[in-house]
Amino acid sequence: MRIVVALGGNALLKRGEPMTPEAQHNNVRVAAAALASLARDHQIVVAHGNGPQVGLMALQAASYAPDNPWPLDVLGAETEGMIGYLIEQELMNALPPGTDCATLLTRVEVDPQDPAFDNPTKPIGPVYSAEEGRLIQADHDWTMVTEGQGGLRRVVPSPLPVAILGINPIRLLVEAGVCVICAGGGGIPVVRGKDGAMKGVEAVIDKDRTSGLLAEALGADILLMLTDVEAVFRNWGEPDQAAISEITPDALDGLSFAVGSMGPKITAACDFVRSGGTMAGIGRLQDAGAIVDGRVGTRVRIAPAEPGTTVSDR
Amino acid sequence: MRIVVALGGNALLKRGEPMTPEAQHNNVRVAAAALASLARDHQIVVAHGNGPQVGLMALQAASYAPDNPWPLDVLGAETEGMIGYLIEQELMNALPPGTDCATLLTRVEVDPQDPAFDNPTKPIGPVYSAEEGRLIQADHDWTMVTEGQGGLRRVVPSPLPVAILGINPIRLLVEAGVCVICAGGGGIPVVRGKDGAMKGVEAVIDKDRTSGLLAEALGADILLMLTDVEAVFRNWGEPDQAAISEITPDALDGLSFAVGSMGPKITAACDFVRSGGTMAGIGRLQDAGAIVDGRVGTRVRIAPAEPGTTVSDR
Repeated sequence: MRIVVALGGNALLKRGEPMTPEAQHNNVRVAAAALASLARDHQIVVAHGNGPQVGLMALQAASYAPDNPWPLDVLGAETEGMIGYLIEQELMNALPPGTDCATLLTRVEVDPQDPAFDNPTKPIGPVYSAEEGRLIQADHDWTMVTEGQGGLRRVVPSPLPVAILGINPIRLLVEAGVCVICAGGGGIPVVRGKDGAMKGVEAVIDKDRTSGLLAEALGADILLMLTDVEAVFRNWGEPDQAAISEITPDALDGLSFAVGSMGPKITAACDFVRSGGTMAGIGRLQDAGAIVDGRVGTRVRIAPAEPGTTVSDR
Repeated sequence: MRIVVALGGNALLKRGEPMTPEAQHNNVRVAAAALASLARDHQIVVAHGNGPQVGLMALQAASYAPDNPWPLDVLGAETEGMIGYLIEQELMNALPPGTDCATLLTRVEVDPQDPAFDNPTKPIGPVYSAEEGRLIQADHDWTMVTEGQGGLRRVVPSPLPVAILGINPIRLLVEAGVCVICAGGGGIPVVRGKDGAMKGVEAVIDKDRTSGLLAEALGADILLMLTDVEAVFRNWGEPDQAAISEITPDALDGLSFAVGSMGPKITAACDFVRSGGTMAGIGRLQDAGAIVDGRVGTRVRIAPAEPGTTVSDR
């Protein structure tokens, strides 16, 4: 089966872990082992997030030249280079010799009128202590929100992906059997100007929404969103919280979820299966194969896996 | 004709110009116009340098976290993302709608025993004043050399490219007529470890040498190396200096050139035409088309353009 895998940026630079090259490289190695295992039985196309990394690049640039801030589209492109390289290298090291792999930079068009530009919600970079966060906020005029227990984190606009530019070359490679890594960080955000030319914008696109578009465009069977959470839960944080194993998009519509990173995953899952995809899976990175096989995580599909069960809780 | 174009890193962030996002973007626009003009008559594959940019990324990372230096392979990958994105965007803006373009990250294998690792020669980043350079050298334990009038510049090892990893997907796209941007910064430098796994190394590969390998692997007709120098000169700096218009590799062997950025271009040009390439051209970015047409710049080929003329000086 053809699977588009969306790898969480937090799976590569973990929450609370120092943002060092070594930490990132070690995490990529773990991710690559999970992907390689999946690639033994399926054709995979890999997309990835960049939340922690794009924030780090912004801090590095601002630290060196505070008066010359680098725009988020260019920083996003840098993260596509950095993360894409590390994934390609470790994935190729884990796959049989002779496997062909290509990592493509991917621009993704967004709507300049997207309301997200007036309402930044996407957290990027590290979580700061309240004191440190207030200093950084004042220095850079960044929008910050609370995260965790009293911490502060920068947020930026996260408009919806409208079109994946360069989808033809991606499709050509995928159909030739090449293992493709693309759409890193949800894609480099660009808009069409009044003159028809594309130009970068200050945003970070949600990688799950872009991965959904990508899976649709490539006619993938499965959209697999891997993160550090075991599954989608009903009544999260309540005494009766329960992991959802199998669910339909219609049943998901009837449930409510806390705002956060799970929201875009659920929307992407519903959109993908409603557009004809066989199944969307959500769960932990190390469970990749088991989610596809139906042993752990959450699977979303139009038709329930077994007759009569639309939602089965584990 | 199929042309591999190697774009100098200095053409994108000019010597002496402040290293701002705006300056780089403006220069990329100029380069894209020249490339688009060439692409009207030929199939182009674009490679580019990253000397100024990879040094800048190193400074940014060191400025934010001096105790956690980022390795040159990862920084090189970041520059492939940043520069590749900007070139793709402006080139696509300049080409007719419907043109397909793909920018691929490219790892290039080098020999861990390459003597270049003990003898850093590749200048990266900005040129510092003597005083500033000495401070930076002491801070980072970097190797510095003098450049220009008393300035100092960081140098890093520049091993020879041995193999372009992922050449199959590049070839597939090129043969399908896609405009490909790849091998940025000479490629991300990697070596094969004793366990067979590839890993990054502290180096910056010369982009002209890698572009030569690329042109050979793709069966290109022309290798075109664009820089900020008009042509290859005989007796450069002497009263009788003369631009070389047409020359054979054998005739080039008999001449001597000052060590510097022209050396790798000449070696790449000779290697390419000796391996079967029709012609290698060297000259200014804005003269791209005119160099191919034989009006300006230097052309290297096995057979002279007209019978009886092996070297013609303008």
